[in-house]
Amino acid sequence: MMFRAVCLLLCSIHAAPSEEGMWLFTHPPVARVREAHGFEITPEWLERLQKSSVRLGSGGSGAFVSPNGLVLTNHHVGAGIIERLSTPERDLLRNGFYAATADDELPCPDLELNVLVNIEDVTARVNGAVDPGLPPGEAAAARRAVIALIERTSTNETGLRSNVVTLYQGGAYHLYRYQRFTDVRLVFAPDARAAAFGGDPDNFDYPRYCLDYAFFRAYEHGEPAKTPHFLKWNAAGAAEGELVFVAGHPGRTNRSITLAQLEDLRDHSLPDSLAQSLRSEAILRAWADRDIENARRAKNSIIGTQNGRKAHMARLNGLLDARLMAGRTQAEADFRSRLAADDDGLRAADAAFDRIAEAVAEARTFAMRQRILEGGFGTGLFGTARALVRAAEESAKPDGERLPEFQDSRRPSLELGLFSPRPVYKDLETLRMADALMVMCDKLGATDPTVILILGGKSPHDRAAELVSGTHLDDPAARRGLYDGGTEAVDSSDDPMILLAKLVDAEARALRKRSDALAESIAQAHQQIAAARFTLDGDSNYPDATFTLRLSYGLVNGYEESGGPVPFQTTMRGMAARHESQGGTPPFDLSPEWLARADRLDPDLPVNFVSTNDITGGNSGSPVVNRAGELVGLIFDTNSHGLVSDFAYSGERGRAISVHPAAIIGTMDRIYGATRVLEELSR
Amino acid sequence: MMFRAVCLLLCSIHAAPSEEGMWLFTHPPVARVREAHGFEITPEWLERLQKSSVRLGSGGSGAFVSPNGLVLTNHHVGAGIIERLSTPERDLLRNGFYAATADDELPCPDLELNVLVNIEDVTARVNGAVDPGLPPGEAAAARRAVIALIERTSTNETGLRSNVVTLYQGGAYHLYRYQRFTDVRLVFAPDARAAAFGGDPDNFDYPRYCLDYAFFRAYEHGEPAKTPHFLKWNAAGAAEGELVFVAGHPGRTNRSITLAQLEDLRDHSLPDSLAQSLRSEAILRAWADRDIENARRAKNSIIGTQNGRKAHMARLNGLLDARLMAGRTQAEADFRSRLAADDDGLRAADAAFDRIAEAVAEARTFAMRQRILEGGFGTGLFGTARALVRAAEESAKPDGERLPEFQDSRRPSLELGLFSPRPVYKDLETLRMADALMVMCDKLGATDPTVILILGGKSPHDRAAELVSGTHLDDPAARRGLYDGGTEAVDSSDDPMILLAKLVDAEARALRKRSDALAESIAQAHQQIAAARFTLDGDSNYPDATFTLRLSYGLVNGYEESGGPVPFQTTMRGMAARHESQGGTPPFDLSPEWLARADRLDPDLPVNFVSTNDITGGNSGSPVVNRAGELVGLIFDTNSHGLVSDFAYSGERGRAISVHPAAIIGTMDRIYGATRVLEELSR
Repeated sequence: MMFRAVCLLLCSIHAAPSEEGMWLFTHPPVARVREAHGFEITPEWLERLQKSSVRLGSGGSGAFVSPNGLVLTNHHVGAGIIERLSTPERDLLRNGFYAATADDELPCPDLELNVLVNIEDVTARVNGAVDPGLPPGEAAAARRAVIALIERTSTNETGLRSNVVTLYQGGAYHLYRYQRFTDVRLVFAPDARAAAFGGDPDNFDYPRYCLDYAFFRAYEHGEPAKTPHFLKWNAAGAAEGELVFVAGHPGRTNRSITLAQLEDLRDHSLPDSLAQSLRSEAILRAWADRDIENARRAKNSIIGTQNGRKAHMARLNGLLDARLMAGRTQAEADFRSRLAADDDGLRAADAAFDRIAEAVAEARTFAMRQRILEGGFGTGLFGTARALVRAAEESAKPDGERLPEFQDSRRPSLELGLFSPRPVYKDLETLRMADALMVMCDKLGATDPTVILILGGKSPHDRAAELVSGTHLDDPAARRGLYDGGTEAVDSSDDPMILLAKLVDAEARALRKRSDALAESIAQAHQQIAAARFTLDGDSNYPDATFTLRLSYGLVNGYEESGGPVPFQTTMRGMAARHESQGGTPPFDLSPEWLARADRLDPDLPVNFVSTNDITGGNSGSPVVNRAGELVGLIFDTNSHGLVSDFAYSGERGRAISVHPAAIIGTMDRIYGATRVLEELSR
Repeated sequence: MMFRAVCLLLCSIHAAPSEEGMWLFTHPPVARVREAHGFEITPEWLERLQKSSVRLGSGGSGAFVSPNGLVLTNHHVGAGIIERLSTPERDLLRNGFYAATADDELPCPDLELNVLVNIEDVTARVNGAVDPGLPPGEAAAARRAVIALIERTSTNETGLRSNVVTLYQGGAYHLYRYQRFTDVRLVFAPDARAAAFGGDPDNFDYPRYCLDYAFFRAYEHGEPAKTPHFLKWNAAGAAEGELVFVAGHPGRTNRSITLAQLEDLRDHSLPDSLAQSLRSEAILRAWADRDIENARRAKNSIIGTQNGRKAHMARLNGLLDARLMAGRTQAEADFRSRLAADDDGLRAADAAFDRIAEAVAEARTFAMRQRILEGGFGTGLFGTARALVRAAEESAKPDGERLPEFQDSRRPSLELGLFSPRPVYKDLETLRMADALMVMCDKLGATDPTVILILGGKSPHDRAAELVSGTHLDDPAARRGLYDGGTEAVDSSDDPMILLAKLVDAEARALRKRSDALAESIAQAHQQIAAARFTLDGDSNYPDATFTLRLSYGLVNGYEESGGPVPFQTTMRGMAARHESQGGTPPFDLSPEWLARADRLDPDLPVNFVSTNDITGGNSGSPVVNRAGELVGLIFDTNSHGLVSDFAYSGERGRAISVHPAAIIGTMDRIYGATRVLEELSR
């Protein structure tokens, strides 16, 4: 039955009905919201929301909630960070963290926050620098060069992080400038049992009972950052049926891709990703079961694979539904026949669909090889080795000719990742690498010359053990030495992981180059299609998600499931009942501290609620605000019906799930005693 | 370091050094044992061991340990049975079972025991009926026909279960006659926490602390069976260095396969099996996590997938070791050059290696398609549907022309499986079938005409839900009705699972026919190679395992690991320490009853021990006996070094792991109070 919601909306994507849309802040849905809900989005309202919104380098969203840099986001967005701050003796992920004084706030060495300061349309500048007659590979290089130049110039002139964002499949290029905060500290996190209550079983499900929130703080010059734009709290939350807005950073959607691309996802990319998720999940869980400390080390990775399983499976199952694909096929055929019938030169855009199909087919011939050789062999230690090898090589080139991640504008982020002092667990890295090498043998063949070179005559398990135990790249000082030493240091290194990175780099780079050229050719075709669609349908559309700031509007509403209503909001009473019915066993367990204080919480206290906002991965931690711009919720998930958001908005039963502000305040007050944070919020 | 043991022995397989060998009872290693250990295997000694040994239909071994049909086997061999006897209210798997009186012994409706009565060499009869000039497909049919005739005639004449076993890759055919016991009852099982202590983490590992034993009883005419051949107990067990024998039913080994077959395993079969294991493990565990009752239902399946993960991974890793393959390559090249140089007509056997390689390559082109269409779509309900569809069709044919599983000699086993009243959990079946359909789309392609027919326009999840909820084959009466009703009943059935089975049967049968013909061609080539090897090396060899009774001899000895010694035996003290160090969390937990009585057990009581016997899967539950033929152990596992036993015996560090008899007696006495069973054993 998931199909109906999907197909109804897939067939009407470009009409953008109901609350569909991840809108640009430069092109907000002012008229739509005015017409449908009688609310006027003003530039001032929008600016405050934009400048209160935060993007986290760990891949999520958040918002300032005080003038002193206090940031609210999801516990699960910060979980990787919190895990890395933990030790066997002090498990902050499991037990939570509260900085009772300002001095106790815990520095997070590898967390970066970005706040969008302004946006500039640079489409003309980018396109002007790319000769339309160039072959795709050279066009891609030219485009990359001008983008790097624009970013570098902007960074130099403004001191702000500057990224050119490709929108509408290349229909537009916008320069996004961000204020960067690299001194970020952990202020408060509930214990994971409450934050991730219901764990994997309840993930992507509803009703739900998660206290999935955490507080960090941005610092500047060793002091809490001054953040005059922030969101005020409305503990009453939103009423049923109320209009709410979400400002956040949806990561990636594929709503404008062609049928050929959708089929490639269905037939190759998604099955491969799902199989890999399932494989990693089984292997990590088995390892975690061996020992209590293993379980702590692997916990966050396991959650990631479980999340992947549910997401990939829901998407793949959706795409394998012949009814859904029939709808997409019809829609594309209709659009193409409009193009083919057009007299104003749009006919060429029809052929662009075929060019995409051809490029997809060609990319498919080496996609698996590229994924493996240009991937990380399962371990961050290899990723580090390759980053060092390439940094040395790329630094010798002019900025515009470098691989994007080594361009000057991205250096700070590169270095932040490279020199993070996060712990490296060699036992866990060996486990992952051993399996990645086994997968490599399966996918590329044990007799492939590159595979033979990589294994060096050993079995996958022996080779992984040798590489991981032999490398010194777990030591930040060793990484620093190789980075600062450049080509000479890298060339003379006998670190086995560096040697492996050098061994595969020529082939990996060649595959990437080939794939970049095809991506460019696809981008150009999409650009042509997007332009034709614009000509035919106007600018009534929003671009696919790009992990940049978007605005979504929606209604706080329940839905129907198996013939019965699912209420819009859950309460502490429901959470206690779920805990009881599962015998209090993990992941339905609660800490002894929680259980001892549970009767201090009003059973009617709201915990989570749902709304029809159009969101996807990356929106985690996004603030939900009301007409007054007050914070009335914190996005943390979507229900299973919403998991096809990658391809389609599903407003009938798909829902965004948020933590209710009263639950945050209530538990900080009654369970955790986080007085200092509460006082700051109420000021 | 696993490699060394493997290669040393792989390179010397046909010299059969040390304690290697799964010997036929018709060709026991009398001279070897006499020469190496000064012990004389007599016909009487052998006969008693043979007739005390039991094969369990659930896929393991066991032995009579009283004259009244009492059978000792592993808890894990009986776990599926015990699980099916359990209900949510009465979880025999978790809590154990003890029939305090004879009347309490619990019937196991789908368990069959076989006892090998005698063996007849029918090689000449089988080969005489197959014209050497026939093409492989027809030769296979002729061979199948004569085998069916031999089996049917034997069954009719003797009333015994009669199976022709193919040995030495077709070098010999032996007729095995078994006494069948189909009324089998559960007598005693410890709780799974003690039986499978250490669970998946400790599986295939050593030191080990498992009380992996259980007692069943064979009945005849409603009374305990009279079993004059049985093993007496020696509670002292075996001393370090002592010579011991194992009589059991090793399932399958691949020690004589050619390099081409080994490469096919390495490059295709094993990676696919491993990926499928990992996938099922992740999906089943996720489902089990959702609910306590789910966990109970899925527990035994999860253990199966975890076992598969470890076994497949160790084997694949071994085959991906270039050093191991280099050894095999050299050995095959050497042997082939001896053949090529031979003047006595052995040259033709050299070409047999190429014929095998060709057949393997051809089978590979449709192996995945066959695995999926001739597999069960993840659910026993489909297997049942197909069995009913084919039973109707095959019954109309002469016995010798039927598929083997529908020949008269196999009918009783077929019907036992078909009419078993074991519970069917439709939620679990839907989960498994949904994923199997998803895998089908991945492997065969979503646009494959057969796939389109199977999905019927629905998504994998929707289609699985529709089929499983719609079928009535979970009801034994419905199965009986279709079976008894034959073609007419099957043809007029509108059961959706029957309709699906009919839909794919023509193609599935065609694939099987093609694959059978290739298997026959491979078997003929192997027969030629085996004959040549016999000519060159004599009969110094044992055949690959065939889940028929074999004798292995070995020494009770520890080994070296990571530079230190691993003692041959563990004790209750070690078990308590392992429980403590893991905080008593599953799978290192023990029942409250156990913990309350643990101090009644002598800390020095032996629990498990290891020996160098050559075993593999199927040997689980095998008795270990001393020179006097007394029971001194119960095989239940192999350590990880022994996991390559599929391809090679590994005596340096590979070990068979057994439960010590003192642990069985001690725990039944002090923990479980199973007085009635103990009295029977001591009589």
